[in-house]
Order: sequence, then structure tokens, then C-alpha cells
Amino acid sequence: MKRVEIRCLHKSADDFKDKEILVCGWVKSVRSNGRFGFIDLSDGTSFRGLQIVFDDKLSNFDKVEKLNAGSSLSIVGQFVLTPNAKQPFELHAKSVEIIQATDDKYPLQKKGHTMEYLRQVAYLRPRTNTFQAIFRIRSVTAMAFHTYFQENGYVYVHTPIITSADCEGSDQMFKVTTFDFNNLPKDENGKVDFSEDLFGKPAFITGSGQLQGEAFALAFSKIYTFGPTLRTENSNTKVHANEFWMIEPEIAFCDVNGLMDIIEEMTKFVVKYVMDRCPDEIAFCDKFIYPGLIARLKGMLGSTFQRKTHHELVDLLRKSGKKWEFAPTYDGDIAKEHEKFITEYFGGPVFVTDWPKDIKAYYMKVNDDGKTVAGVDLLLPEVGEIVGASERETRYDVLVSRMEEMHVNREPIEWYLNLRKFGGCPHSGFGIGFERFVMYLTGVENIRDVLPFPRTPKNCDF
Amino acid sequence: MKRVEIRCLHKSADDFKDKEILVCGWVKSVRSNGRFGFIDLSDGTSFRGLQIVFDDKLSNFDKVEKLNAGSSLSIVGQFVLTPNAKQPFELHAKSVEIIQATDDKYPLQKKGHTMEYLRQVAYLRPRTNTFQAIFRIRSVTAMAFHTYFQENGYVYVHTPIITSADCEGSDQMFKVTTFDFNNLPKDENGKVDFSEDLFGKPAFITGSGQLQGEAFALAFSKIYTFGPTLRTENSNTKVHANEFWMIEPEIAFCDVNGLMDIIEEMTKFVVKYVMDRCPDEIAFCDKFIYPGLIARLKGMLGSTFQRKTHHELVDLLRKSGKKWEFAPTYDGDIAKEHEKFITEYFGGPVFVTDWPKDIKAYYMKVNDDGKTVAGVDLLLPEVGEIVGASERETRYDVLVSRMEEMHVNREPIEWYLNLRKFGGCPHSGFGIGFERFVMYLTGVENIRDVLPFPRTPKNCDF
Repeated sequence: MKRVEIRCLHKSADDFKDKEILVCGWVKSVRSNGRFGFIDLSDGTSFRGLQIVFDDKLSNFDKVEKLNAGSSLSIVGQFVLTPNAKQPFELHAKSVEIIQATDDKYPLQKKGHTMEYLRQVAYLRPRTNTFQAIFRIRSVTAMAFHTYFQENGYVYVHTPIITSADCEGSDQMFKVTTFDFNNLPKDENGKVDFSEDLFGKPAFITGSGQLQGEAFALAFSKIYTFGPTLRTENSNTKVHANEFWMIEPEIAFCDVNGLMDIIEEMTKFVVKYVMDRCPDEIAFCDKFIYPGLIARLKGMLGSTFQRKTHHELVDLLRKSGKKWEFAPTYDGDIAKEHEKFITEYFGGPVFVTDWPKDIKAYYMKVNDDGKTVAGVDLLLPEVGEIVGASERETRYDVLVSRMEEMHVNREPIEWYLNLRKFGGCPHSGFGIGFERFVMYLTGVENIRDVLPFPRTPKNCDF
Repeated sequence: MKRVEIRCLHKSADDFKDKEILVCGWVKSVRSNGRFGFIDLSDGTSFRGLQIVFDDKLSNFDKVEKLNAGSSLSIVGQFVLTPNAKQPFELHAKSVEIIQATDDKYPLQKKGHTMEYLRQVAYLRPRTNTFQAIFRIRSVTAMAFHTYFQENGYVYVHTPIITSADCEGSDQMFKVTTFDFNNLPKDENGKVDFSEDLFGKPAFITGSGQLQGEAFALAFSKIYTFGPTLRTENSNTKVHANEFWMIEPEIAFCDVNGLMDIIEEMTKFVVKYVMDRCPDEIAFCDKFIYPGLIARLKGMLGSTFQRKTHHELVDLLRKSGKKWEFAPTYDGDIAKEHEKFITEYFGGPVFVTDWPKDIKAYYMKVNDDGKTVAGVDLLLPEVGEIVGASERETRYDVLVSRMEEMHVNREPIEWYLNLRKFGGCPHSGFGIGFERFVMYLTGVENIRDVLPFPRTPKNCDF
């Protein structure tokens, strides 16, 4: 007999009416009065479980009624619609095969657990309601991004993880090697001789696929990347991880205004896609993780994103009469406290445009004023910056002098500069931290709880 | 005026009939007779280009007629349907803005180039017809896998890249560090002191997400991973790269027979999805890269995959009367020459089941004979092995003794062993090398030509 997944029962219960079916899954809880009882069974294919009704006609009734949470079962029974009951249907068990029973050593007993404890059993936490919701939303959110880009004619590009270009500043990048650390080959000056390493030179894990993405955008017009990103930041905060996923779209013949149109459209598409497909999971998050989540998401969908220059916003912050921990300045960054004020003031998402060039990356287009760049950050209420974007500098000479100003080594990326020589054109792109987006969608506060197995300083278990 | 993408013109030409539109793109070729001429324009959003008709009423006619391949243009003109001509429509240019003209230094002149040359200009090769076809097929193939799994209730899991478990054998894994190689901290014994490194211990780049995938399958029933994989193999072959993408599905309550059903269904789904969505690109590959490609793909779609044991196939190979470079043995691997014979003999894809346990991984379920494991390889005609699969060993004691036999260090993966204690159940999974699949779909022979920026020994440019 072929196993029926519980998601199929919820999707089309009528198809199974009164049929004998086989289901498999794990016990969430068991209640019994000694003559009959109920198992709340989950197989993880749907947020909603299946109620199993069993009675003492089962040959192993005494074992079944004592089952512990987490036990794995295989059950044959009759599927019965129950239109007048709390749950829409139930399964009347004819046989319950206990595949593996857990006992009181099972780390996830029925009682509630703290998020901190659950991180210590990261290999088991996806079995809890909280992480069933979070990780299914994560999966569907990834599909939402793919769907948006593919339906709109973007080409998905797998940019490489390993790079020999240290233009981002190699102190931000992991170094990779095949050498034995305790037996490094040395050159005549006593320095490590990388000519003997696999790639014949020092190699790093890149923190961005943007440069390679630009090369593909200048061939396909519209591309996106979506892959893991590694950074060595030694930051123990709720929003930093050393390994996370990032999406980096790049669009040719597109200026910064066209870019903002795309970001707004994409953001709303993804949020709506996930709300449509994960209503149970989102409702759970709204109830148990972040009360007000649904209102926040609906509010965003109904809003028009504001577009304000950095200068305008610093004016606003200064005139607000508020006491700031970090004084807002025309040549400085926008702090968390400022972001909060700005999104509350405008009552919704805000694009911050025209940033002072000295605090932004070398590849951003310098505006005509010579002081600002065509960079854009998107701020969302309550979570702050979620997208970093810019029109790229396409003028060869300006780009080279910006790199010199910012001490970026051009030698390993001459090919990137060449993109400005060979059929170059205006183009723009952005980066989305995928985990931040999932945090926005679930209300989860700590990035460690939206990553399946988080890597953070001193933490590389599982 | 908002730019119209060429893919939109091909999708719904009637919507644009006789309208004035703006298009942007790159010159493929120009012909002119001194009074009027034609530009073959590509914007990369569709494999088919757009014919631009221009004449000497253009103020910059003399520049336009001399344009070189690769020049970037912005063109306003009238869109005209041409039902009786070779191409279905054309654009009558009113103005042609030359964004950036290339000259004879442009590395992709109109003449043909070898694949080897194009690898040297990997940042430009996506502009050629060949790589427009390959990389769009790659993108659509990725979406095909996502679509298959998401529509069938699988959860997409981002397993980590960085690991501290060296159970695969760390000689296959890259080592990562934040240390300065020329200034490594040492402990009292003169060994490198990793307690000062970011994770506080040695860290590696994993070559598989399977172990973590199993943990999630035991919570969600059906999961898949899809991400980059790094291996240090120093192999200069057509089918090895040090960085490639892999898909690793894992299914709970599924034995090796159920697994083969899934692999066959998935393979056909993906091939059909790509053929439906990339007819022009597949036709190009069939014509210029691998004559017979379409027949091969259609043949596969119409076939039923054979299921044969390793033992049966060795019998077959031995009785074939053929001279083998590598003699087939009952306890040995199946060589390339054997794979070729087997798929030709059966005239289609073949699952090889029940492998001798000593040449397979520790996590594969040991069969009742005690000699073989429930591992499966899928062989495709002409390309050989494309999927490696197995039912997993779920018996704690058997797994532990297999690890001991094969000298696998259990300490860093105690959590993995615990999955066999806490509600364990039969489960199975497989790995697909994504590049091999793209090679199968395009007929491309060398893995370097399906990777955007390949990383192979001594080769880490761009």
C-alpha cells in the first residue's frame, strides 16, 4: 500500500472519503482513556496534522496508548470525514506499527522549550511547531524569489564561491586552502608558497557574486544570483551570521529609478506569494512569534514605498527635535534609531537615495554633484535596511579613480573594468539578505532561528 | 519611454503592432548598402534577436552602418509585423543612440571562436549564441528542479557550507580559516592553535549536505538541498570541477524502490520542462553542439528505466564476450566502458542496484545478504552515471560498526547517529550533480562550459 502524505488529505479530503489508507509520521501527542484514544500525528508535509482514533481492538493497544512524542509510526486505517467536529477528518486506525518509540530521553518532550535550548538540538528542532512554520516559510520564500525572477525573464546565474580576487578586502573573506596547516610549503623568503596550492595562488571565499553578475547582465540583460555567502565578521549580534544566503539581481539598461520600481514590485510579490501559500504558518507566527505580523505584512502590501534622499532625511532627523544617540550628519550613515524614526514618520517602507559617496562602495555611480552616489537602501518598518542597491559606475575613468581613492586592488579584476570598454551600458543591481527577509516574514528576532544550522563565531556544530 | 524587452516582442508581437517602442541591446551584426541597412540586435532576454531596419535619414547613419559586434545601442522605432519575411517582425529605427561602440579590439569579433578561447574570456562568452543557449538552459533547468520538488511537497533546505566534521575525509575538503597564513598562532606543541580561529576549531567546506538533509527529512518527510559543493580533487578531466552545484533530496518512509520511482519521475519532469521552455536553445544545441540531442532526450522521455542488480550486470558484462580494459568483478566498481555497454544493451537508462558494500559509503543500508548495500546509481545512455542514491542505514548498531569498519570519526557526528534513536524510520536519498545534468541536456562535453566561471586545478580566474 502506498503511503498518503497528510498534505494530500488536507488538500483534497473528499478524494479519500471512507477509504483505507496508509499514513506515516511522528507522534505529537497521545490521549487515551484505557478503552480508546487519539494520536495527533505529523508527517511534516503540512503544518496541520492528522487525528488518529484508536481503540483496544488494536493488538498493541497498551503500547500505543503510552507512546511518547517523537515516536515514528506507520498506520493503516479508514479515513473518515467529520464535518461537525473540530478537525475536518480523522483516521480510524486498524493497525498501528510502531517503527521506533521514543522514551523520556527524547530531547523534545511535550513541554515548551526556549529558543536557546532548541539551538542546542538544531538537528531535532525542525520537528517543533515553531520550526515547522519557520523552515517551511523559508523554503516557500526561496521559491517565491525564483518564481518572480524567472517569470520576469531573469536568468539565474551561479556565480562562484571561490575567488582569487581580494578586492573586497581579504579581512572580510575566509581563506581556503588544501594545505596541511602544520606543514605549509614556504618560498625562499620564508613566506607560504601558494604556487603549490590547488589553484596556484591564494584563494578566498567571496562575499558577493556582484562582479560576475554584472558580466552576465551585460549579456542577458536581467540576471539574478541566489547562493550562500560567507563573511568573517566576528559579530555576536541577532542579525549577523558568518554564513547566510543572498540574492543579487542585476539589470542592464536600468537606472536607479527603474531599480526601485523592480525592488518594490519584487518585495510585494514575494510577501504575497508566501502569505497565499503558507496561511497556517503565517497565522502561527502571528500568534506565537510576533503578534501583529499579519497586519505588518498587509500594511506593506497596501503601501507605496517612499523615495527620499539621504540629505532630505538627515534634514528631517535634525528637525525632529529628538535626542539621538548618534547625531545625524550629511556625510554619515543612518543608524538603527534613525531608520526606526524614518519608517514610523512615513508610516511604511522608505527608499533612501543619493548617499554620500565616501561611505559607499567604489562601484556605485557618482552623481553629477560629485558628492553623492546613486546608491539606494530600502528600509522596512520595524526591521530597517533590507535591500542595498545602486546604479553602477559605468565610466571607465571614474571607476578607476574611485578604486584608487578607496585603495581597491584592480589587478585581479581587470576583466571587470573591461566591461566598461566592451559594449558597456547603464546597469543597476541590488542585494537582499535572504535571512533578513525571512525574519521580516516570520517575525523571528534572531538570525540563528531562521538558518537550518547557523554558523556564528565559535559556533560551527552539526 | 519604457524599454521593451525582445522576449516580450516574441511572446506577443500583436500587442506591439505598428507602435513606437524603445529597445536596447547589443549588436550581433550590421549590413548596409550605403542607403539603408539592417542590425541584428540581441538583448539577451530571448534566444531570438530583433532585426532593426535603418536608413540614411538617421543623423548618425554613417556611424551606425559601421558599428562593430558587441556595441550597445538604444533604439526608438516603429514595430512592424512582416508575415511574409524570414523573421516575423522588424523595427524601423527612428533614432539609434550608440551607448558604447566597440572596435577591432573587442575580443568577440564576428568570426567563430574555439571553446578554449572563449574560456579565456569567460566574462564575455555569455554574449555568444552558444553560451546564450547553455546558460539559459542552465537557469531553466535549476527552476525545473525547484518546481518539481516544490510542487511535490518537498521543503528546500539550505544546509551549511562550513563544517567542523571531517567525516568525509578532510583530504577531500577545503580548509577555511581567518588566520594570516604567514603568522599562524601556535600552541605549546608548535601545532596551529585553532582555538583562536573564528569558530574555535578547524573548519572545512563540506562536500555534501546529506547528513543535515537527513535531519530535516526526519521532520518534514520530504526535503531537498540545492547549493554549491566544493571538492579538492586535483583532477583535470572533462567532468570534474572543484566547485559545482548539487541537489540532494531525502525522503522519509521511503525505501530504495520508492526512491527509484521518484528519480525516474523527476528526471523526466526536468527534461520535459526544459524542452518545453527552451525550444530554440535546445534546437541550437542539437544543431551546433551535439547532433542527435533532441532524439536522445525524446528517447529518454519515452523509455522505462531498467532496474538491474550489480551482480546481474557483472554477469552480463562477463558473458558479453567483449574485451574489457577493466575486468568486471562482483566486488568492484562499474567502469565507463561498462556503463556504455549496459545502457546500449538495454537501449535506455538503467538503475544499478545492490552494490557490494565495500566500495560504497558507510551510510548505505546493508542488505539482508550482509554483502551488498541498498545503493543505486542511475546510468544514462552516452553520459553514464548521473545520480547516486541509497536507502540509508537506520539501525544504530549496524551504522556504528560500518563507521568503524570504514574508519569514519563518529565524534563530530554523534547528532547524526542520534537520528537513529529518536523516532528514526526508513529513509532514502540521492545526489544529482547539477552540471552533469546540464551537460546531458545540452550535449556539452566539458564541465568548464556549463559553469559560468569554472574553478578547476590552477584555474581560479574571474
